[in-house]
Amino acid sequence: MSTSRPATPPMFISAPDMLAHWQGHRRLTRRVIDLFPEDKIFSFSLGGMRTFGELTNEMLMMAAPMAHGLATLEWHAYTPRTIATKADLLATWDESTRVIDEAWGRIPPERFQETLASFGQYTGTGHWQVTYVVDNEIHHRGQGYVYLRALGIAPPAFWER
Amino acid sequence: MSTSRPATPPMFISAPDMLAHWQGHRRLTRRVIDLFPEDKIFSFSLGGMRTFGELTNEMLMMAAPMAHGLATLEWHAYTPRTIATKADLLATWDESTRVIDEAWGRIPPERFQETLASFGQYTGTGHWQVTYVVDNEIHHRGQGYVYLRALGIAPPAFWER
Repeated sequence: MSTSRPATPPMFISAPDMLAHWQGHRRLTRRVIDLFPEDKIFSFSLGGMRTFGELTNEMLMMAAPMAHGLATLEWHAYTPRTIATKADLLATWDESTRVIDEAWGRIPPERFQETLASFGQYTGTGHWQVTYVVDNEIHHRGQGYVYLRALGIAPPAFWER
Repeated sequence: MSTSRPATPPMFISAPDMLAHWQGHRRLTRRVIDLFPEDKIFSFSLGGMRTFGELTNEMLMMAAPMAHGLATLEWHAYTPRTIATKADLLATWDESTRVIDEAWGRIPPERFQETLASFGQYTGTGHWQVTYVVDNEIHHRGQGYVYLRALGIAPPAFWER
């Protein structure tokens, strides 16, 4: 993008394809949320870990605020959401989907290669910021799969998006 | 890369940065393997799922063969590895690290945007092929975190790479 740089290295994935990749993962995570029984999502866990409801609150705290922040460089306070019902988790999930789609198109293309501090404290390139959020979701969703299996519920296939 | 295409969409992440990202995840996964007690890695699981040793065998089956396949379009038979000791898992992990580093530099840059069938059967773009392997590792490593916690062992911080 900048003429002062040396030749751009080869592209691995474009910004539009990364958005599609992220939203594909988010559709899978939504299915996992929806598979949890209402009385288990905020009560069941293994190994002293957080419940899947708590983990979903963390995902919601990171995802749309990250897309908004990369588009605007305005960072909402990084404070825990405290959604306490499955229906509200799902509704907020869908609202976040729309925020991410809308904000993504407003992220300046060069921002993914620039270094910035998200939420005023996490310093890295724009692509690092996004992959951190996506990878964190995959990581915790994998933990949700174990919770579901321990509850006798079959999770969706990992490749379903 | 090709002059017959419309304007290239903005880059999210470059090929060299994606390799660094992947190898960072692989260093974290190596730490998780190493934290499992020898007598638990092939015996302990939760919810009727595979042991972390079996999951690691799957990761090894996918990672270096994917990098080699993208570089050469030669696909090794997609057959399960059956490594049965932790020391051998770690040694094969390190060997895979070298194979991936070496093969990555030989992947033609345009291949990440092309559609191909890996292992003769999984059809998608080159970037989809790689992210599938990386995401699958994150997913199963997240499950390994639950196993470790259930065994009373603190896993490494997710952001350690």
